[in-house]
Amino acid sequence: MADYKYYWEDFAVGEVATFGNFEVTREEIIAFASEYDPQPFHTDEELAKKSFIGSLCASGWHTSAMVMRIICDGYLLDTAGMGAPGVEESKWRAPVRPGDILSVTRECLDRRVSKSRPEMGLTTFRHSARNQHGEDKMIMTGTMMIARRDPTAGEG
Amino acid sequence: MADYKYYWEDFAVGEVATFGNFEVTREEIIAFASEYDPQPFHTDEELAKKSFIGSLCASGWHTSAMVMRIICDGYLLDTAGMGAPGVEESKWRAPVRPGDILSVTRECLDRRVSKSRPEMGLTTFRHSARNQHGEDKMIMTGTMMIARRDPTAGEG
Repeated sequence: MADYKYYWEDFAVGEVATFGNFEVTREEIIAFASEYDPQPFHTDEELAKKSFIGSLCASGWHTSAMVMRIICDGYLLDTAGMGAPGVEESKWRAPVRPGDILSVTRECLDRRVSKSRPEMGLTTFRHSARNQHGEDKMIMTGTMMIARRDPTAGEG
Repeated sequence: MADYKYYWEDFAVGEVATFGNFEVTREEIIAFASEYDPQPFHTDEELAKKSFIGSLCASGWHTSAMVMRIICDGYLLDTAGMGAPGVEESKWRAPVRPGDILSVTRECLDRRVSKSRPEMGLTTFRHSARNQHGEDKMIMTGTMMIARRDPTAGEG
């Protein structure tokens, strides 16, 4: 196994950390949406102005992807991650628009050793994204599978 | 308001429909992951082979985005959609790999008129993605806001 900075043991319940500065651009909003979510209020500034939302905003899936990139750069690429079975809840709290600079706060809510695969643990995180003005943009809560540094230890 | 094919009234609880044929390619898996989820098992075939997952697979966020594109092409671009507050649950059931051809089955689970905004309704859908061999790949359950054709009517 490659040597990582962080293993399952390194995320303690209650710990809070903040990462990232991801600048959202008009070009990237349109490029992502053209590929994956071509609703007009995500792809066309003029049509967005006439829509219920009033101006161009990012697809929620694009916001999710940007949050994932902040998570990767913030700690996950240095972590012995083993994937995730899904996301328990994603809330898009407010539209993400060009000029927003996103950061993500990670809270560790729960952790346990896998019963069926003792080489790994399961850790539940809440990731909250805000812009540079402190406006809540997105919350996602989910469980990640992370390799244990010492699979022979107890519940750490 | 633009004229759409489908309004809130057109989605009946219990209705089931299937859409799409989205072919997943190695190039797109790597391109998406390089931008938004650069964990090595999503960006590099050789490193993926040596990883816990054994071969290159799509980021779960990429799978979510591909499912959204199938939803858009299948019905949402013809629907008076007004966004979504989030996703109640996303489950990535199995890795999505190059050569998978994804389709999505939509089940309408629940619907109601918004109390605060009577011009729209809220409809809960479960979208299940499978590949061409019928393997379950992803389930997402969430509520969409959809404009009503006739906001003066009762609960439709």
